[in-house]
Amino acid sequence: MITQTADHTDIRATNLAAVLGFLRREAPCSRAAIASGTGLNKATVTSIVGDLLDRRLVRETQQTQNHVGRPATLLVLDGSAYAAIGLEVSARGLTALAYDTAGEQVLRWHRAGPGVDAGPAKTVAALATLARRAITTVQSSGRRVLGITVGVPGLVNRDGCVVLAAGLGWRDVSLRTELTASIGRPDIPVTVENDATLAVLAEHLYGPLADCENLIHLTGDTGVGAGIIVDGRPLRGHLGYVGEIGHLRLVPDGPVCGCGQRGCLEALASLPAILSRVDGLDDSDPQVQLEHLIRRADAGEAAVTKVLAEAGMHLGHGVAALVNILNPAQIVLGGSYALLSVHLIPSITKALEEAAIAPEAGGCTVTASTFPNTATPLGATAQALTPLTQGHLPVL
Amino acid sequence: MITQTADHTDIRATNLAAVLGFLRREAPCSRAAIASGTGLNKATVTSIVGDLLDRRLVRETQQTQNHVGRPATLLVLDGSAYAAIGLEVSARGLTALAYDTAGEQVLRWHRAGPGVDAGPAKTVAALATLARRAITTVQSSGRRVLGITVGVPGLVNRDGCVVLAAGLGWRDVSLRTELTASIGRPDIPVTVENDATLAVLAEHLYGPLADCENLIHLTGDTGVGAGIIVDGRPLRGHLGYVGEIGHLRLVPDGPVCGCGQRGCLEALASLPAILSRVDGLDDSDPQVQLEHLIRRADAGEAAVTKVLAEAGMHLGHGVAALVNILNPAQIVLGGSYALLSVHLIPSITKALEEAAIAPEAGGCTVTASTFPNTATPLGATAQALTPLTQGHLPVL
Repeated sequence: MITQTADHTDIRATNLAAVLGFLRREAPCSRAAIASGTGLNKATVTSIVGDLLDRRLVRETQQTQNHVGRPATLLVLDGSAYAAIGLEVSARGLTALAYDTAGEQVLRWHRAGPGVDAGPAKTVAALATLARRAITTVQSSGRRVLGITVGVPGLVNRDGCVVLAAGLGWRDVSLRTELTASIGRPDIPVTVENDATLAVLAEHLYGPLADCENLIHLTGDTGVGAGIIVDGRPLRGHLGYVGEIGHLRLVPDGPVCGCGQRGCLEALASLPAILSRVDGLDDSDPQVQLEHLIRRADAGEAAVTKVLAEAGMHLGHGVAALVNILNPAQIVLGGSYALLSVHLIPSITKALEEAAIAPEAGGCTVTASTFPNTATPLGATAQALTPLTQGHLPVL
Repeated sequence: MITQTADHTDIRATNLAAVLGFLRREAPCSRAAIASGTGLNKATVTSIVGDLLDRRLVRETQQTQNHVGRPATLLVLDGSAYAAIGLEVSARGLTALAYDTAGEQVLRWHRAGPGVDAGPAKTVAALATLARRAITTVQSSGRRVLGITVGVPGLVNRDGCVVLAAGLGWRDVSLRTELTASIGRPDIPVTVENDATLAVLAEHLYGPLADCENLIHLTGDTGVGAGIIVDGRPLRGHLGYVGEIGHLRLVPDGPVCGCGQRGCLEALASLPAILSRVDGLDDSDPQVQLEHLIRRADAGEAAVTKVLAEAGMHLGHGVAALVNILNPAQIVLGGSYALLSVHLIPSITKALEEAAIAPEAGGCTVTASTFPNTATPLGATAQALTPLTQGHLPVL
């Protein structure tokens, strides 16, 4: 609880972040509009905009305002100079996404992974190949890569080591170190983060729940994990291991979980657990199995909807624990849960209403993500741009 | 995610808070030491210290420093002008505490409550009587009361209404409104807050875990509740209902809970649940029953230590859920759990090690509070002083 006063560098970065944030919400806009919207004086705004123009983070348009008086040159974000790459590893495969600094998508790729049984080395190699191709594609568009962030379904420590990702069969994989070496571009910072933590960042920044201050993103593609924003801030915790709701023990004599215990939420209601309970999904690619599952559920096949209703009930009890402990306004179902949401939400909501202690579940609503396939890599691109959004300009 | 720039009033308050915070940690100290410690210029420090001297929040001492050069007058916090009152309602009774702005205790009282069966009206009346007496005592010491904060074991909404306190048998009690009317001092702001949220604030500000950034305070005197600090900030949530770990369902066919469900942590391991499982605790005052329980446990009576080991196991599973979701560095056992900690911690730790997914429980340690009887009212006094610690001076 030490209150710090701000020094000059901090103030410059804070003000630059305020100008960029205003442009992100309001562009096109004039320097005068930025000054009045941020409370900064015009000289400061002019100086900051000069820096942003120099780095092609902002450009002037020919448009003018229809006000009385001298027409003003308007400013918009410029995405032609820099981009960030977001990657995701999951049981469904590998995903790569790149966005430029004006919020335009530069690339979006998905490929089947080497499979959970292949072991971490093959997956890391495939991920590095994907990253190198993404860098090449971004660079051939004329942009510099400011950073790469990777989302992984597991415990990631502050050194970017995946301490445990039970659903991938990983333990103590030094992903950041290995990927940095394998990519061979020490000038591009690589960050590794929990997948759900990145996904909730995407929900908080983009889409219909942007700016919701109390928001939880629930994913189950590999393990079951929660990305958590409380009071407007993503939670990190002591070592960065928040959101591991997958090992809540719901059924004392339930099925064995990858963690060695019985009856964990993950063993009852993750996508792999759901797929294992449905007969006749023969393809070995989990992505193809999921599409098959969705078709059969949408067609109303009773054996399939029963499995999903049971999974929804267990998820509802997990959600109730999150609601009782964290009082979110929104629970967002991500990944495959979003694609299956019409079959899951009724039983989730019923279990939540029974098990939440606060009246009306403390005002919590359960919805499906509008980014079912890309929340994690989208959040990863935002995470990779964190220095810039906090007002620290790329070194020229 | 709107970044705001600071206006003049905010800057003055931020700087004043920095000066007061520095004095709290470092006094006695000179104006020059404050300037170098906070990064503020000397003219600003002199002006702020002038305001603080005017309000008797700071005073000059006769001490001088042993440095070369002109001796400097040293400053210390002055508690002679203002104090705050913290109150607690629990199944163990009512507690009142007052601290002045220099951190000195002005009063500390405990009395048996009217009992859970008496209904909210009698408890509110008893609490108002206690508050009025506390105001009189503080005023007769020459100090003005800056605020009163009350901790209650239940869901408290932003209007200070206790929406639900199952352990007290309360539902929709407009405590802030009723207490304000009953005290009859509209000039003194009354705040109502969840008891565990106040208790964790006390742990975070004072005592051996001060400045621990990831800290959970667990209380079970009435219901079972957790006060949560993650990444240095107390969590509040959408409607203020965080920390309701008491209704985690651990034993599907377990004992009926006050909430209507079966096998909740609260029904298995709250103090009332523990007391109900031990024979021969005849006194009707829960405080006397607790003292009796502690004596028999400390004497090694097998029937008693068995009940406590079982409660500890259930608490350990609840703690594991908190650890998996929030990754705290410290779990602090408060209230009666602190007094019983030698009997509870071994079984809590065992269950936690089994059920936590992160290696070594994510670095989490379980300890006993050093404020077993006063964490909530102590946190309440700190809460009542929040405007001042944020740099807003009392109006003269």
